[in-house]
Amino acid sequence: MSTAAEVLARCSELDRFSLHRTRLERTHLTPQHAQANARVAQWMGAAGLRTWQDAAGNVCGRAEGRTPGLPALLLGSHLDSVPDAGSYDGMLGVLMAIAVAERLATAVASGELEPLPVALEVIGFGDEEGARFGTALLGSRAVAGAWDDDWWDLRDRDGTTLHQAFLDFGLDPRRVGEAARRPEELVGYLEAHIEQGPVLEAADEPLGYVTSIAGARRFRLTVHGEARHAGGTPYARRRDALVGASEAVTAIERLARASGEDGCIATVGRFVVHPGAVNVIPGRVELSLDLRAATDAARDAMWGDIEDEVRRRCTARGLRLEVLETHRAAAVRCSPWLQEAVVQGIGATGRARPPGLWSRAGHDAMAMARVTGTGMLFLRCAGGISHHPDEAVREDDVAAGLDALQAAVLAAAGRHAESRG
Amino acid sequence: MSTAAEVLARCSELDRFSLHRTRLERTHLTPQHAQANARVAQWMGAAGLRTWQDAAGNVCGRAEGRTPGLPALLLGSHLDSVPDAGSYDGMLGVLMAIAVAERLATAVASGELEPLPVALEVIGFGDEEGARFGTALLGSRAVAGAWDDDWWDLRDRDGTTLHQAFLDFGLDPRRVGEAARRPEELVGYLEAHIEQGPVLEAADEPLGYVTSIAGARRFRLTVHGEARHAGGTPYARRRDALVGASEAVTAIERLARASGEDGCIATVGRFVVHPGAVNVIPGRVELSLDLRAATDAARDAMWGDIEDEVRRRCTARGLRLEVLETHRAAAVRCSPWLQEAVVQGIGATGRARPPGLWSRAGHDAMAMARVTGTGMLFLRCAGGISHHPDEAVREDDVAAGLDALQAAVLAAAGRHAESRG
Repeated sequence: MSTAAEVLARCSELDRFSLHRTRLERTHLTPQHAQANARVAQWMGAAGLRTWQDAAGNVCGRAEGRTPGLPALLLGSHLDSVPDAGSYDGMLGVLMAIAVAERLATAVASGELEPLPVALEVIGFGDEEGARFGTALLGSRAVAGAWDDDWWDLRDRDGTTLHQAFLDFGLDPRRVGEAARRPEELVGYLEAHIEQGPVLEAADEPLGYVTSIAGARRFRLTVHGEARHAGGTPYARRRDALVGASEAVTAIERLARASGEDGCIATVGRFVVHPGAVNVIPGRVELSLDLRAATDAARDAMWGDIEDEVRRRCTARGLRLEVLETHRAAAVRCSPWLQEAVVQGIGATGRARPPGLWSRAGHDAMAMARVTGTGMLFLRCAGGISHHPDEAVREDDVAAGLDALQAAVLAAAGRHAESRG
Repeated sequence: MSTAAEVLARCSELDRFSLHRTRLERTHLTPQHAQANARVAQWMGAAGLRTWQDAAGNVCGRAEGRTPGLPALLLGSHLDSVPDAGSYDGMLGVLMAIAVAERLATAVASGELEPLPVALEVIGFGDEEGARFGTALLGSRAVAGAWDDDWWDLRDRDGTTLHQAFLDFGLDPRRVGEAARRPEELVGYLEAHIEQGPVLEAADEPLGYVTSIAGARRFRLTVHGEARHAGGTPYARRRDALVGASEAVTAIERLARASGEDGCIATVGRFVVHPGAVNVIPGRVELSLDLRAATDAARDAMWGDIEDEVRRRCTARGLRLEVLETHRAAAVRCSPWLQEAVVQGIGATGRARPPGLWSRAGHDAMAMARVTGTGMLFLRCAGGISHHPDEAVREDDVAAGLDALQAAVLAAAGRHAESRG
């Protein structure tokens, strides 16, 4: 089971483990998560890996290298989804990793390949999206040793705490620390993932390597005006918070667009208007701003421009702007030596100068960077669509991706062995 | 009790009948409504009026004219409020009407004035704002014979139906039709009200007469885009419903402002964004549009301009616009002969050429126009503020208003008698 067609068939098979019959939703520590882990563990076993579920609910498999107990090159991605998800975001990376492990094991068994100078592990993280508990990367942050005990009180929409969800899944919350890996156990982390963007498609390239993962900042902006009678208040007397906030939304888009296709991405996703009555001028609007860029400096400069512009517009309308930063994650640079290994891997498929991209979306590799070096291989996806049932990848791209990932593993293993002399 | 100071003191006294201790909220068929009705009936009685509560919960008083049973010139306004209301919107008109009735009764009793050729009635409507059941003018529409039995199922925010509220208030829903007045019982309807706008203040005029009451149209607009991953989707691929709806809001303001201070008023008060998650591009926005103008033609032309512009912008962004009209009320022109009576009344205060205004807000006079001729006297209010605790009127303006309303009543009574020859 190591061809692209087989990998894609497995992606489709995992769609069955969903909260809904006709659309994919598989969130952390649910029965569907357990079903997916069990099936993935079967596939890992068939690939010759020794399998276990770790103390945080991630499914794991390991093949030893030329001697037992060597540090491991870890391959993986996640098995959870957003609501109404596509079949490839996360899952493709896990199933490609299993296929590559199987191909390497076969090559070693047949004598075609020397046993590797590293162990090879595959991991399917149980939570990357954060769709159930609102906090993302719970699986990879446990493995990276970055668990925060405050998370135990996080609740899903039914009121179930993360602590209770661990118990319901058969996990012992007191032992979550055992999922953490030590840096010396690991050689690095390599993740294959659909691009979730249109850059590769536009460049007519099946594969790319990732240079960095976007640093995000999130803000809660509140525009304060004055709620008044809609009929009786003429324009000269209005301090309409909605008109001010609408100007903010269009200005934010204009500024971020002006930074170019490789620049910043700014999204207002939450936007709540008070009091929200048909015949009352809005007195207050709360809006979220999600800001991403390849570098923290570019992102912070964009925030400065946005804040200036929005403040200026509010002042001109007699509105008051209130700003609260709710989240800040530094951009994560992929390790140069693993970037190079991925470039070499892609080179082995005949593409000598593959495109380097920064990832606008977050990934497990962001969390893993706390404990080991990381590299990522991006695969072209149709129309850049992700987080949507229309998510699609081409079979020949997956075939190229498998060859590239396999070659990248060998390149990384070789470089690691070299560095140890 | 017939000076401006006394009228203003009574307005303040009614503030006590509120759901809250420190801010005014008095809605239809509540205990506070009953308290206000009882106090107002006392004042009516002291002014020499025979009083009753009608079958719809309005408080009424009547003084006969020179013979009993003559058709009545009806004076009034409403006693209910919006949440966080001021003290004058509605109440001032009721209390001025009582003061004028008292002054006329005193003048007749002293022989200074001939008995009137019409009966004089005062009414305090129980619902104009519609704050409790969402449908406005319930009091005046009952009196105008425009009751709709569908309203019985309207519910307040606690789930109480209008039918139950009638029972709780001691009213028999089956008898609501008895509140309706027949055209032949009425000479006309005159209402004094604060302007709820800044036109009189800007013109340095204490009083104005109303030419028409705005015709309103309300729409529910839905902008359909595509919900997508906030990080992974670059601008070229976005169909962001919020950015499109924000452009609509700013365009609506720009178009309505361009129609001039005496032109249209367009307000987006409700604006709901889906799915409303921080990291998801908004896929759908529902917004309300409330559109008012002096004439239906001006209002309809403005709607045409707005729809064209919003549709054009949505199309340019690959968004789909859906339009539903939820409400349409024709503009109501005040009766020329009662406009003339109000002009004469203001003239009696020494202002020969008072300003004529169209009312951007709705009033009980809109409903009453279905059963009789209507006229309105507007009083200047501070900063045009209404539906807000800062609502304020000057005592000397109220004094002028009392003189003008009294003179307008005499002018209207005289014109009526003349027309009957």
